[in-house]
Amino acid sequence: MSEFTSKIRTIQWIDTYSRMVDQTKFPDKFEYVDIKTGEDMFSAIRTMIVRGAPAIGIAGAHGIVLFAQEGIDKFNTREEFSSWLIQKAEYMKTSRPTAVNLMWACQKQIEVIKSSTSDKAGLIEELKQNAIKLENEDIEINKKIGDYGAEVVPKGATILTHCNAGALATVGYGTALGVVRSAFAKDNTVQVFADETRPRQQGARITTLELTMDGIPVTLITDGMCSYFMKKGMIDMVCVGADRIAANGDTANKIGTYTVAIAAKYHNIPFYVAAPLSTIDTTIKTGDEIIIEERSHEEVTMINGKSVCAEGVNVINPGFDVTPNELIAGIITEKGILRPDYKNSIKEVFQK
Amino acid sequence: MSEFTSKIRTIQWIDTYSRMVDQTKFPDKFEYVDIKTGEDMFSAIRTMIVRGAPAIGIAGAHGIVLFAQEGIDKFNTREEFSSWLIQKAEYMKTSRPTAVNLMWACQKQIEVIKSSTSDKAGLIEELKQNAIKLENEDIEINKKIGDYGAEVVPKGATILTHCNAGALATVGYGTALGVVRSAFAKDNTVQVFADETRPRQQGARITTLELTMDGIPVTLITDGMCSYFMKKGMIDMVCVGADRIAANGDTANKIGTYTVAIAAKYHNIPFYVAAPLSTIDTTIKTGDEIIIEERSHEEVTMINGKSVCAEGVNVINPGFDVTPNELIAGIITEKGILRPDYKNSIKEVFQK
Repeated sequence: MSEFTSKIRTIQWIDTYSRMVDQTKFPDKFEYVDIKTGEDMFSAIRTMIVRGAPAIGIAGAHGIVLFAQEGIDKFNTREEFSSWLIQKAEYMKTSRPTAVNLMWACQKQIEVIKSSTSDKAGLIEELKQNAIKLENEDIEINKKIGDYGAEVVPKGATILTHCNAGALATVGYGTALGVVRSAFAKDNTVQVFADETRPRQQGARITTLELTMDGIPVTLITDGMCSYFMKKGMIDMVCVGADRIAANGDTANKIGTYTVAIAAKYHNIPFYVAAPLSTIDTTIKTGDEIIIEERSHEEVTMINGKSVCAEGVNVINPGFDVTPNELIAGIITEKGILRPDYKNSIKEVFQK
Repeated sequence: MSEFTSKIRTIQWIDTYSRMVDQTKFPDKFEYVDIKTGEDMFSAIRTMIVRGAPAIGIAGAHGIVLFAQEGIDKFNTREEFSSWLIQKAEYMKTSRPTAVNLMWACQKQIEVIKSSTSDKAGLIEELKQNAIKLENEDIEINKKIGDYGAEVVPKGATILTHCNAGALATVGYGTALGVVRSAFAKDNTVQVFADETRPRQQGARITTLELTMDGIPVTLITDGMCSYFMKKGMIDMVCVGADRIAANGDTANKIGTYTVAIAAKYHNIPFYVAAPLSTIDTTIKTGDEIIIEERSHEEVTMINGKSVCAEGVNVINPGFDVTPNELIAGIITEKGILRPDYKNSIKEVFQK
């Protein structure tokens, strides 16, 4: 497995509390915040101190341990304690209603609560161990994705990415940027071009920060520039993350991804998606079934608290778009790279 | 000719001075500034109080009249006066070294100075009349472009545009937005989607402002979103301006235009360029010969005076890109719409 050591650990359980990077401070500051109560974790998720689907999942699992620590002396019986804790876990799921990983991780903790035969203190220990296990698994899955992905990165490649599918969206290491880290560990002439990713600028604020911290060369460009550099032969591959992948390989990711995929196709540059198998939703046949969230208009009209357009202008602000499978060269997972026809390769990987 | 009356007059000669919209105040304020000396005009061009190649050209022509008014009492002979004035005209050309229209308009004034047989006061009157003629011709050319373009705008169309090729880039009316104005005059169900156009956000700051002022519906989107709306069938045509067009139709325009053109091709949406014939540079065979200006990195890294990325990140900021002729459905000029093969159609239009 990759020998690359990242400086970034987005979230980590420490003894009795959760330590996370405060992502609301980017790009000005890289600061940790210690979350010590269940309610504070609920807020941290809701206010996006922690972001990125895998990282949010772990945060939710940590939050349930925090609630358990607070509740141990409140209840006389093990049943009362468990029943209260399950309520708190269901509540934690609602901190960011659209993050699938949050539901999944909270549910994993609920299963522990339901199946445990230990006393109250023992249950807390089991929840804590389960949270730490989920943390470690997340990094391990990312490293596997990174290592499979690194195999298709050409020597000295420049990899274009959109948004942030990095260490800071996961527990550490990252998916698309995990591929970058594994490739860079083998060949330190690899470099990244980062789309700024309007409107929320995760590429500018987060991707440039985490790659700079890890000593990986990164060049910031605006979203419209990708084709210019592709035509000049300066981009060798594109690698992005995913928010949801349909059973046919159609991939929902941050708005603007689809435009990059079309540009890559026009220039015959391979476009890869890097994501854990948990991102593939086999209940959805094609990308047409993925509902796209419409986000606040201020994300487009205001930058740093100041309006950038005429008053009263119409705005539409879809948060995501869907890249059709025909534009995707491969989907890099922890079980290898899936190739077209995705309907078959996705079916097969889940039968393994 | 189109009956559309725009509220916008970007620049106009008034008696003894030049009145222009102060474009550094957008989008907060729409204010006029009166320029009364040649030096003030040089500054106004350099600091981008006036912008857009056609508007800058007229500003330069006005500036030479202003210098003439100031110089009339400084020189005893008509020769001394003329020779000094030609120096000032050459100086005015250097206020924005890359704007071709500026050179062209200043040269037109130099020709007047050289060929005039009037006395000093008479020469000033001739320079003033020539400036006013250039102003009026600019609007007339725009209206012709608009009217030819309107013929290919489908009923109820949504037109996507990039950057600002509008009334505020010209004396009035606009090129790409001239097409919009002429189409809207015939069919008020026509509307515009405006790319914000990072990094300088001319789409957000200027296009939304001028269309809102003229009562034409406009929706602001980020540059990466264009494909999303194209796929949804919400865009019927693309129309953009041009900074320079090669003899084969390859078109240099604001960075990001090429990406939009590729997306339009992928969705079979016609992509039009609207520009006066003066934008076509027949000395340049293909777009490969067009030199692309690299602009300040702060345009990418800073927004509203605040950094949006990690410190020390690399940046490349090309100001323009080249859209190859194969992606262009037509070039809308004041002599009609040029169609592929552009090498022939461009040659023919200049032989007319």
